[in-house]
Amino acid sequence: MEVQEYLEARREFFNSRLPGYLPSPEDCPPVLLRAMEYSLFAGGKRLRPILLFAAAEGCGGSREKALPLAAALEMVHTYSLIHDDLPAMDDDDFRRGRPSCHKVFGEGMAILAGDALLTQAFLVLAREAGEAGPRAGEELALAAGPVGMVAGQALDISGAGAGNPEALRRLHALKTGALIQAAVRLGAMSAGAGEETLAGLTEFARAYGLAYQIADDIRDVTKTRQELGKSPGSDVKKGKSTYASLFGLEKARALALEEISRGEKALVALAGDFSLLAGLARSLKI
Amino acid sequence: MEVQEYLEARREFFNSRLPGYLPSPEDCPPVLLRAMEYSLFAGGKRLRPILLFAAAEGCGGSREKALPLAAALEMVHTYSLIHDDLPAMDDDDFRRGRPSCHKVFGEGMAILAGDALLTQAFLVLAREAGEAGPRAGEELALAAGPVGMVAGQALDISGAGAGNPEALRRLHALKTGALIQAAVRLGAMSAGAGEETLAGLTEFARAYGLAYQIADDIRDVTKTRQELGKSPGSDVKKGKSTYASLFGLEKARALALEEISRGEKALVALAGDFSLLAGLARSLKI
Repeated sequence: MEVQEYLEARREFFNSRLPGYLPSPEDCPPVLLRAMEYSLFAGGKRLRPILLFAAAEGCGGSREKALPLAAALEMVHTYSLIHDDLPAMDDDDFRRGRPSCHKVFGEGMAILAGDALLTQAFLVLAREAGEAGPRAGEELALAAGPVGMVAGQALDISGAGAGNPEALRRLHALKTGALIQAAVRLGAMSAGAGEETLAGLTEFARAYGLAYQIADDIRDVTKTRQELGKSPGSDVKKGKSTYASLFGLEKARALALEEISRGEKALVALAGDFSLLAGLARSLKI
Repeated sequence: MEVQEYLEARREFFNSRLPGYLPSPEDCPPVLLRAMEYSLFAGGKRLRPILLFAAAEGCGGSREKALPLAAALEMVHTYSLIHDDLPAMDDDDFRRGRPSCHKVFGEGMAILAGDALLTQAFLVLAREAGEAGPRAGEELALAAGPVGMVAGQALDISGAGAGNPEALRRLHALKTGALIQAAVRLGAMSAGAGEETLAGLTEFARAYGLAYQIADDIRDVTKTRQELGKSPGSDVKKGKSTYASLFGLEKARALALEEISRGEKALVALAGDFSLLAGLARSLKI
């Protein structure tokens, strides 16, 4: 299957099944459920689920077994966006071209919708992920928590990374890299992959995660508001360093391409067919 | 052992071991870890861990096996207090006689400290809870998430429960009752208790949780600022209904005593020695 076709097929599969992992409307206050759904179905690219499926299928696993892990991961990603957009954090009024969760439901309900999605993710893993559940729970908690994604968010709001390439790299490795790495690893876990495959996929994911962040920084300054769904240059305006601001566009592009090539190399020696994963990396718009 | 002695012994045991479940300072941004510790070691009563230990030991289990479950539960309880105190939620500047987390670390870091504690709780269960881990993860996620505690918080900030005893009961059964029920059930699970024991303990916990909330409402209007560690009558001032405001103090007291007696009855027929659990319920100051 071609990369673009795969992306669309898995996105559609994921979107059609994701609602089944939300709490039942009889048990959940309607406004809370609406706030969760508003952000979970806001037209996200589903990048992490698709990486998870590609890793799982590359290891000989199935999208069915990978699905609950993908749902849990996307819930964690979505919660992080809701909390990140809050006035006390990144203060973004728009997300994917629509008002942020807190602009529609109020800050209190947005905080709770994020809390609810994070907690629901662990319920989904415990109930639906079968044999892979316990290990997947550990993986997700490690990647999302205070030595993973939340650590990156804490560094970000503390102004770490300003003007310092090494600090910026660490910040992004935690803030966005940890969940991208978890995506690929969770996919492999759902397929019962061995340690060697996991190690190689982890190396791929680290390189891909960095390339993805650099591409994001480049987009932030080169695209229009309509293309981004929010104000362009918003990171730069907030005084944050980005790869584009630290290195300039040309050097940033070269760094991203270097990472993609490093990522592809990590896949070569592995047992399994990871051509789709490599294709996803190559299809990053840089 | 007498109830008071047991309370103190288990609180001391718990406090001495809880730090071991936090992330290592090498892996976690210092300010994030400080914010987590500030609230986790703020001098809480450790009611939920103590209930958990009493249930575990009543079922013939050990405090050692119960410890990681108690640590995870207290992290979830602490995260809920941090988020609850935020200006967009209950807007409390004080908690246990000290400035709230967000007054010391800022709102953004307080949101993240809460997120981090919630996530760390699931890491602790995955890594440290042994055989009980998977079931405990499901129990905690269900109790804490969008059909449990967070549902109660959502009802609370939406103004549900105002003037209506049945809605108030549901609100509290979710907002505080769900975690109290989880405490008792997690303790039993750590001891490998059977379904019948779990069902009886669940009935006890429901009654205890309601009595605890009524007692809290009574304290809110009868105690001084120094005794409460925050402004007295704060719920009433926010226009929220409480058991005291809906029923008056005398009737509220009678309702609480009725629940305590109902809770004790639920324990009588169970296999195990639950005299400490019953003693804890009787020692509620009403």
